[in-house]
Amino acid sequence: MAEPPAQDLLLAAAFVSDAQYNRNIPFKTSPEAVRLYYLYNHWMMRTATYFFIFLNLSLAMFEEPAVYPLPFLVTSVLEVLCLLVFLGRLAHFATVTLHSVFWKDTKNICIMVAILLSLTDLAIYGVLRVYGVRSIRWSRIVRPIFLINFAESRQIRRAFRSIRNTLPEITYVFLLFMFSLLMFSLMALKLFGERNLQTAEGLPYFRNYLEIVFDLYVLVTTANSPDVMMPAFDFSSWYALFFIAFVIVNTYIFMSLFLAVVYNNYKKHLKNEIRKLAYMKRRKMIEAFNLLKEEEGEQLVVREARWKQLVKLVAPDISNSHRELLLRISDNEQKGFVDKKSFVQLADLLNIQVVTLKLRSHPLARWVPRVYGSAASRLLRGLVRHRAFVWTYDAIILINAIFIALDEETPYISYAEWVFLALYVTEILLKVYTYEPRAFFGKTQFWNWFDTLIIFAALTATILNATLKSTTKYNSQQILDIVFILRVLRLIRIVDSIQRFRVIMNTLINIVPTMLTFGGLTLVVYCVFAIIGMELFHGKIQFFPADSNAPHALECGNPALKDSLFARGKYCKNNFNDFASSFIVLMELTVVNQWHVFANGFANVTVQPAKLYFIAFHIVMVIIIVNIFVSFILEAFFVEYSLEKSEVETAIEQKIQELGMGVQEDELQDEQLLDNMESDEHELEGEGGTKPQPKGLVFKIASKRYRTVDALLQRMFEAEIPLEDEGPSLEEILNLSPSAAIPRNPNSESVA
Amino acid sequence: MAEPPAQDLLLAAAFVSDAQYNRNIPFKTSPEAVRLYYLYNHWMMRTATYFFIFLNLSLAMFEEPAVYPLPFLVTSVLEVLCLLVFLGRLAHFATVTLHSVFWKDTKNICIMVAILLSLTDLAIYGVLRVYGVRSIRWSRIVRPIFLINFAESRQIRRAFRSIRNTLPEITYVFLLFMFSLLMFSLMALKLFGERNLQTAEGLPYFRNYLEIVFDLYVLVTTANSPDVMMPAFDFSSWYALFFIAFVIVNTYIFMSLFLAVVYNNYKKHLKNEIRKLAYMKRRKMIEAFNLLKEEEGEQLVVREARWKQLVKLVAPDISNSHRELLLRISDNEQKGFVDKKSFVQLADLLNIQVVTLKLRSHPLARWVPRVYGSAASRLLRGLVRHRAFVWTYDAIILINAIFIALDEETPYISYAEWVFLALYVTEILLKVYTYEPRAFFGKTQFWNWFDTLIIFAALTATILNATLKSTTKYNSQQILDIVFILRVLRLIRIVDSIQRFRVIMNTLINIVPTMLTFGGLTLVVYCVFAIIGMELFHGKIQFFPADSNAPHALECGNPALKDSLFARGKYCKNNFNDFASSFIVLMELTVVNQWHVFANGFANVTVQPAKLYFIAFHIVMVIIIVNIFVSFILEAFFVEYSLEKSEVETAIEQKIQELGMGVQEDELQDEQLLDNMESDEHELEGEGGTKPQPKGLVFKIASKRYRTVDALLQRMFEAEIPLEDEGPSLEEILNLSPSAAIPRNPNSESVA
Repeated sequence: MAEPPAQDLLLAAAFVSDAQYNRNIPFKTSPEAVRLYYLYNHWMMRTATYFFIFLNLSLAMFEEPAVYPLPFLVTSVLEVLCLLVFLGRLAHFATVTLHSVFWKDTKNICIMVAILLSLTDLAIYGVLRVYGVRSIRWSRIVRPIFLINFAESRQIRRAFRSIRNTLPEITYVFLLFMFSLLMFSLMALKLFGERNLQTAEGLPYFRNYLEIVFDLYVLVTTANSPDVMMPAFDFSSWYALFFIAFVIVNTYIFMSLFLAVVYNNYKKHLKNEIRKLAYMKRRKMIEAFNLLKEEEGEQLVVREARWKQLVKLVAPDISNSHRELLLRISDNEQKGFVDKKSFVQLADLLNIQVVTLKLRSHPLARWVPRVYGSAASRLLRGLVRHRAFVWTYDAIILINAIFIALDEETPYISYAEWVFLALYVTEILLKVYTYEPRAFFGKTQFWNWFDTLIIFAALTATILNATLKSTTKYNSQQILDIVFILRVLRLIRIVDSIQRFRVIMNTLINIVPTMLTFGGLTLVVYCVFAIIGMELFHGKIQFFPADSNAPHALECGNPALKDSLFARGKYCKNNFNDFASSFIVLMELTVVNQWHVFANGFANVTVQPAKLYFIAFHIVMVIIIVNIFVSFILEAFFVEYSLEKSEVETAIEQKIQELGMGVQEDELQDEQLLDNMESDEHELEGEGGTKPQPKGLVFKIASKRYRTVDALLQRMFEAEIPLEDEGPSLEEILNLSPSAAIPRNPNSESVA
Repeated sequence: MAEPPAQDLLLAAAFVSDAQYNRNIPFKTSPEAVRLYYLYNHWMMRTATYFFIFLNLSLAMFEEPAVYPLPFLVTSVLEVLCLLVFLGRLAHFATVTLHSVFWKDTKNICIMVAILLSLTDLAIYGVLRVYGVRSIRWSRIVRPIFLINFAESRQIRRAFRSIRNTLPEITYVFLLFMFSLLMFSLMALKLFGERNLQTAEGLPYFRNYLEIVFDLYVLVTTANSPDVMMPAFDFSSWYALFFIAFVIVNTYIFMSLFLAVVYNNYKKHLKNEIRKLAYMKRRKMIEAFNLLKEEEGEQLVVREARWKQLVKLVAPDISNSHRELLLRISDNEQKGFVDKKSFVQLADLLNIQVVTLKLRSHPLARWVPRVYGSAASRLLRGLVRHRAFVWTYDAIILINAIFIALDEETPYISYAEWVFLALYVTEILLKVYTYEPRAFFGKTQFWNWFDTLIIFAALTATILNATLKSTTKYNSQQILDIVFILRVLRLIRIVDSIQRFRVIMNTLINIVPTMLTFGGLTLVVYCVFAIIGMELFHGKIQFFPADSNAPHALECGNPALKDSLFARGKYCKNNFNDFASSFIVLMELTVVNQWHVFANGFANVTVQPAKLYFIAFHIVMVIIIVNIFVSFILEAFFVEYSLEKSEVETAIEQKIQELGMGVQEDELQDEQLLDNMESDEHELEGEGGTKPQPKGLVFKIASKRYRTVDALLQRMFEAEIPLEDEGPSLEEILNLSPSAAIPRNPNSESVA
């Protein structure tokens, strides 16, 4: 039995690791390239790349118009540094991957072009600046390209692909919608144009065709309802019918249609992407298998020793016992080798988080066994473990919340705070007394950590506040307030303990990771629009504090805004004068309400076509991205609701049970519904309860509440591919179209 | 071969007819009961019922506070009349159905209780009125019960069932949402409460907990964004983060979650309802078969003669040739009888609209064959049939639209109108010359009718306008304007001729029937809220014309509104002073924007808890009903997109082709995509084109564009039930739960 060459093992480990994390980089298989590839995937390298991407993006905070101004020299040196890092990362990637692949990938070309553009622009701007000529830093707009195109941002790229795929269909609906809008505008012009009506601001009402189109577009977003209707409605009640028809057709039907189109495409392409990922994973595992396989009778298998070496390489952090567990699952009959079918599952096995619980007795039981084991002590621990203890504290938190809502000027309420604090501290001490402290502050015990930290923060803040009361009254009070409020967040735990709410909470928690993708997407769109917005509207609108004596302080420093809704709404601080303000304006535009006031305001201080900027933002952000976000939540919700334990996971669980190393059966039974392993009370009851476990290790599968929608979908799909199926070739996988035949609908469960 | 008794035939026809129209009334099978049942289902009886239901509802327009006041005596007599009609209808129903069924049905009990309540209330109110005491007509709230509970309103009841089914889950999400809202409000109180900030109106900002909860609830609906944020944002930019977090959690995530929950339940229950309907239909067809069956060899069959009698009874309107066609399909091998399997399909066959086209030559060709067949005439007809002719007129309509948008004060533009009119009239004359007039004005030729009517209306209006120009200038101009605009609606035809738009238009057209259900649902909710609203807010707010000298005219006649946003927005005409106004206010509240201004305004003129009315309306109308509406559009869209010709239809089409009675194959080939049978140009080309059809009848299946989502879903589901399956028993059908096993997912196509 010849030892396999070390590089084969390394290569196989790279394949398995890629399969585990769904990385799809076609790297070279030469030993040096594999080593470089390991370096490329090192978490420090990736973190550094992200750091420089965000540094590059945040430069907009320091460049003119700046939130925190820095000299041009500093920002340009930082930018060059970022660009060099990007270039280095790209060069690293080029050495890892094949030349033909590297140059065919638009991502890489994009990055290179972006670097080139940025450098050129920086040079031109710098030279012109030396000669005192002010020009536009137009290349700042390409900066988000780095966020999108580095191989690490797979999720964001997928979201962009999703948008690109949706565009053709959205366009058709949009054209139809525009047709409807133009027709209604024509009718409005004819119906209201010659009646000499006036708006509430005394402006002419529905006279100009283009203005009508804009006003009715705003009505579609409901932002100027019912104001836009009132003059006509005051004139005659019957005119309300026109607006009712308009709103039904355009707001209700067309806007829902946009959502339907986006959702339909999102679903379709999501499935295709998942399918690609699943096939790629299968391929990589088979390649790893082929590298390590040996003959065993008639079968090709991977022997135990080699398998262990591989797992050690791929997941150096997992414990020996965990590895042993994985082996027992892969080599079910303990034959000393792993066959192909089991080997292919390794990536999934590694992805399942198995928590190793060490059963230990309480340190006090070791130090002062007599006292700790006394009847009084046991009664106390029994009380703390009792459900009523939790309920009592839930009630206390609730009462505390009411006290916080009350005015704390009254002295007895501020004294009550001390009582509450004392109660909370007692609670923690009692719990630490009852439960084993290292288990109590285990990695997965989020709520215990949370409670303890909050209460000690509150304690510190309260004491500090009491000592410094005389000096800086308000500020310390404010910190205290925030800590008090955080403490009320413990109420979430009450909600979380009710099963029905738990299902919803699980959905919410599971969608958080993917929401970060939407955060990235939003960041890209906001960056681009903020940079354009700053070029267009910078300095046109100023904010003055309420007591300012500046001329036109009430008109935001611009007489063009006199009597405008913008000035009357006191929106002066909503401007494009720096990057942060622009972001907040864009956020407000995303929320949609009053966006027409912004559009009119900024059009008044510049030119009327400036409204196009706001319309463009509405189309991109609200009609496309918010709808994709809603689609994502809808789909996530359906997947979560149709959620069942995946097969791989059940296999591990069975094995854990077989080996007698699980937490007791009766604890596990209702895990499907309640997943009560999470609540510390139960878990530790199992430990120190009436049926003491054999001392040693206990495994449990980490709660399903931290599984992402992606992972769920992928498992659902994989359950459909037969284990023998090696999937289509690499070429075919990459060119899979959403309409191609799928083994069976991977999402059908979510619909039934 | 004994003739079946006439009553058996009548009974069977009743079953088939019920199956065809999806009626589910368990009527008695005695001959008299069947005859009464026919009367009960007669269209006049049903129309009369609807008429009195709407009359009863519209009484609110004439009762105090009235839009058009009528004496109390008149309205009360009308109401008693309506109630008597309802009682009569109910009594009729009682004679038709079994006693046990009648008394077990909550619908009937509801109607009886509602009648009783209405009469009691009317009597009390009348008596008190005689003695000069004013009381509340509280029973007006029960009037929508008649709309919901009469057996005719199956769709509305289904929508209500859908809401009821969604409620438990919605409630959990809502409680979680309320928890989040209360927590954020607590934080807001602590963060902003003691800073002495002021809103743009100079009111205290975020001081009172309940007001904060209301303000933040409004922010969830986005109606007061960004105003609610501005004071805090002006104080410190960092406070914007609080509002951003709030909007992300509550507006984006929770509101999407509401949609997800509603959509999920909607889908689930829709399928269950459809399944029930499909099984009921199957059952009824089998009962009809059992009544008419005879032995033929080893089979039980229905013989041809009896089958024809049945079809004549069920569908007296269809032509002999159509019936012959149906028979040829049912009795495929012309054996002289119809077997059970084919018989069961009869209800579906009857539901397919087959259009019988009669091929005739042009009357001019018969009257003046020489002239009509001359080279010039043929050239002219060729020109008219050419695509370029259509395109030319599309271009003319487009130019006309631009002219309409321009100012018609300029004289040459008003002259241009005459030119356009002349062109349109010429177009119609040319078309009638080219195509056979009776075919041109056929029942399914919607656009031809539309064009012709519009143009003649425009012609009449223009001539009238020109003659009466001096006298009543504006009003006739206005009518003319509207007619001009309607003419521009012909542009829809251009849009409709592009295939991509056509798919979207088909979806839109197909959802119209079900939208009427939502209209009914909305009507019910509006009625209830309008009646409550009138009791609460009647007369508190008055509308005065702009030039009024009344005291407090600017404050809507109520000094409590001084300086309020309500008065400043000139919303005085939005009040609950009569039924029609209330409806418009409720419509504006449905659109959501500015609803807090209404809530605050009406709370100012009454008491603060009045805001609860507006919050309740928001929850019922926006969170539940609008979301159901959106769910419906989403589902409709997916079904339409996954639409394929159903099997029954294909069978008919095949038969038509086999019999050589179809429109040419090449016309039918791309029907799936373009459905070009609809466009008159094509259709009539096929008729009078180069390959003349044998003189006589031509069938075609009416376009799929008039199929409802319901019908599509039902067919999809039926395709899954094997034809032999008789379905579960009646008892089982009625108790089907949405989670029960379905043969296969009837909607799986819509997801793939």
